[in-house]
Amino acid sequence: MSSPERDFVTAHLDDLHADLDAWLRIPSISADPAHAADVAASAGWLADALRRTGFPTVEIWPTPGAPAVFAEWPCADPGAPVALVYGHHDVQPVDPVGLWVHPPFEPTRVETPDGPELHARGAIDDKGNVAFHLLGVRAHLAATGRDTPAVTVKLLVEGEEESGSPHFADLLREHADRLRCDVVVVSDTGMAAPDVPSAVVAMRGLADAEITLRGPAVDLHSGSFGGGVPNPLHAMATLLAALHDEQGRVTLPDFYEAVRPLTDRERDLMARVPFDEQAWLAGPAASRAATGEAGFTTLERIGARPTAEVNGMWGGYTGPGHKTIIPAEAHAKLTFRLVADQRPEDVGPMLRTWVEARLPEGIEAEVHTPPGGVSPCASDLDSPAMAALLAAIGRAFDRDPADVLFTREGGSGPEADLVDVLGAPLLFLGAGLPTDRIHSPNERVLLPMLYRGAEAAAHLWRELAAMAFPPR
Amino acid sequence: MSSPERDFVTAHLDDLHADLDAWLRIPSISADPAHAADVAASAGWLADALRRTGFPTVEIWPTPGAPAVFAEWPCADPGAPVALVYGHHDVQPVDPVGLWVHPPFEPTRVETPDGPELHARGAIDDKGNVAFHLLGVRAHLAATGRDTPAVTVKLLVEGEEESGSPHFADLLREHADRLRCDVVVVSDTGMAAPDVPSAVVAMRGLADAEITLRGPAVDLHSGSFGGGVPNPLHAMATLLAALHDEQGRVTLPDFYEAVRPLTDRERDLMARVPFDEQAWLAGPAASRAATGEAGFTTLERIGARPTAEVNGMWGGYTGPGHKTIIPAEAHAKLTFRLVADQRPEDVGPMLRTWVEARLPEGIEAEVHTPPGGVSPCASDLDSPAMAALLAAIGRAFDRDPADVLFTREGGSGPEADLVDVLGAPLLFLGAGLPTDRIHSPNERVLLPMLYRGAEAAAHLWRELAAMAFPPR
Repeated sequence: MSSPERDFVTAHLDDLHADLDAWLRIPSISADPAHAADVAASAGWLADALRRTGFPTVEIWPTPGAPAVFAEWPCADPGAPVALVYGHHDVQPVDPVGLWVHPPFEPTRVETPDGPELHARGAIDDKGNVAFHLLGVRAHLAATGRDTPAVTVKLLVEGEEESGSPHFADLLREHADRLRCDVVVVSDTGMAAPDVPSAVVAMRGLADAEITLRGPAVDLHSGSFGGGVPNPLHAMATLLAALHDEQGRVTLPDFYEAVRPLTDRERDLMARVPFDEQAWLAGPAASRAATGEAGFTTLERIGARPTAEVNGMWGGYTGPGHKTIIPAEAHAKLTFRLVADQRPEDVGPMLRTWVEARLPEGIEAEVHTPPGGVSPCASDLDSPAMAALLAAIGRAFDRDPADVLFTREGGSGPEADLVDVLGAPLLFLGAGLPTDRIHSPNERVLLPMLYRGAEAAAHLWRELAAMAFPPR
Repeated sequence: MSSPERDFVTAHLDDLHADLDAWLRIPSISADPAHAADVAASAGWLADALRRTGFPTVEIWPTPGAPAVFAEWPCADPGAPVALVYGHHDVQPVDPVGLWVHPPFEPTRVETPDGPELHARGAIDDKGNVAFHLLGVRAHLAATGRDTPAVTVKLLVEGEEESGSPHFADLLREHADRLRCDVVVVSDTGMAAPDVPSAVVAMRGLADAEITLRGPAVDLHSGSFGGGVPNPLHAMATLLAALHDEQGRVTLPDFYEAVRPLTDRERDLMARVPFDEQAWLAGPAASRAATGEAGFTTLERIGARPTAEVNGMWGGYTGPGHKTIIPAEAHAKLTFRLVADQRPEDVGPMLRTWVEARLPEGIEAEVHTPPGGVSPCASDLDSPAMAALLAAIGRAFDRDPADVLFTREGGSGPEADLVDVLGAPLLFLGAGLPTDRIHSPNERVLLPMLYRGAEAAAHLWRELAAMAFPPR
């Protein structure tokens, strides 16, 4: 389906290629203090590129960590809706660098049967996803013949996402006025497959906890005392074994109370997403079996259901040979993935109640749940903004909006902070693919996905302008 | 009850004091290679002392580690029974040395309401227990007017007991002919209380194992995969939680099959041993509760029943903060305390069967059970040798032999090797007390206990000579 947006994008692919080639050469690894100057240089490059694109306001916002980039291109109509694009300009570390076929910071084009790929750290996560907006907004203006976008377009591109966004919520609060918007467009995700256009509609939240169990005051000799006093490792095993029931459900009291049930429609929509479980097990999951909560598919389990995972467990003697002790302490680290409308701050009290009810005689427990956590987020499938997104993606992929699928991300990011602080609904427009090897060696982007991303962004600004938003 | 043995001991206490003062100044710490020369010096001191005592044969037996001392004083009657005394001349390390009130290798006499104590590392474990035999055999000769003991007395005093006796079984096999005996007298234990003469009649055995569970091939992101694949830490918790049933019994198949049941008489005898459970919990056990196998007292649980203890458990992320992974592996170290007639070599197959039957889908297990282990040992309560021991202890403490109590050691030592290699029954004659702080700072011996030990040894040689032993 030809369109002036697609024509402009197609005529200016080399601009996108040139932008990416320059930006991806900057090793903006936020987790490595040695790369702090590179992260700053990456912010500087993006600010220049946004100015060059035509954004009248471009600012670099410092944080106690890495800087963020803010840009704004107001619609001439002050009553037009305001959209805020979220992304990040920092990248993951590249270890083990020996596994890269091409150097991670020398972008390399590779031709494949699916189309040209670009290999580099950050190619999709998240520089590719941000870069397509530079071309997208130009395509929007050219296609509509406007001097300013049909909606006010703001961008906030942070520099610490790969380090857990430690200063992001503060940054949002500090600049809440400047960031005011009707909709947030998160560009840091992807689609189900090259020929399966889709939109993420939910991300899970996160709460973490650490349990310490204490038995004897000191490590005891298991010969002299074994069999007569409680062993904290036995108590920890018994406790954690009870974390799930036989149906694979988390046993914390009221854990599921706030969970918004999956509707039949949502489950039908998830079932439409192509998913080869055997290939997933053999590949990304690297596992021998798919298991989990009874009554749910694997995609539902990892995307739409809350979990409790033990991430670490330790206690007693762990060196070579044996040491015949009853240890004084046992420890476990847990994280809970949450779905709408669970709240991370509710997990601590639930866990404490649960542990106290299960403590055997002679064992004392300490449950530490740090403040914070990440709220789950979910998009309204039937909002006007969602209709605009589906229309935009549909046009870019030559599909009916009703054929754009919904997917769910099992992980957690700073997106919930955007909802919390800005009070605006979330849309997700990203051009990644599950096979892009993000966070791994040989990260790549399938370039035609970026072209479609740029076109979808261009369509989105026009579609959003036509929607009626509730008054702010 | 006066006796020529007691008279001799009482007249020669200063010999015992002088011996201990000299020997305890040698820091024979076998675990520390820096003290290898001291361990050798300790063997040399003991050899000289045995020669001075009158033993016609005294030899230092080298091992790949620390040397042992062997001595023999044959009875003039070649048909007399042969007794072999077992002890060790090495001592535990002294860390933390700052907690010692007196320097650990400067023997210091301290007067207490119970009588004089001697403070030094090794004061009872085991130099004190060996030293009383030097005086004991002289008292026996003086009291009986003999030139040679009434039984052939052999001593084997090893130098690596505090390091796990790694070369002891080989040493026994190498010298089995020289060590041939009718009864082994282990002098490395103690009695229930200063006024409660008793004899150890059993020690538990030991088998150790390590379990590794494997799930995904690599650590997985718990956001992307959590809820959809098995977590080895969950599997380990579930496995170890099932190691005991609700009665506190070990669930390995046939684990109790070879256990010699406690007779009513044995349980009555154990119940006669004074034991203040609250004081034990507040003191040595440093625990908040006494728990264990249903239907047994604490003394039975720690002395006469087999156990399974998890000594260490680890897997996943154990550093600061949290790391949202499903780990690839989980690990646990276990030891099993065994009682007669369990065999350590049977535990591995039982554990393997048990683990395999409980493995959840998608988890693989490796069970490592090193060869070796320690066999449990138990004395025959009704043997002629036991009658001799009870008579000897009774006379030294002015009690009827029927008032000498039986105790059980929960730990494991090289004693079972003596039974295995030499095929002789075990007696235990030791002068220690539960309050002697062995292996801890401020180890001490209550000197009157050593005097009684010397007298009991003197009586024992006469009593044993009067017993009819089965032909060798």
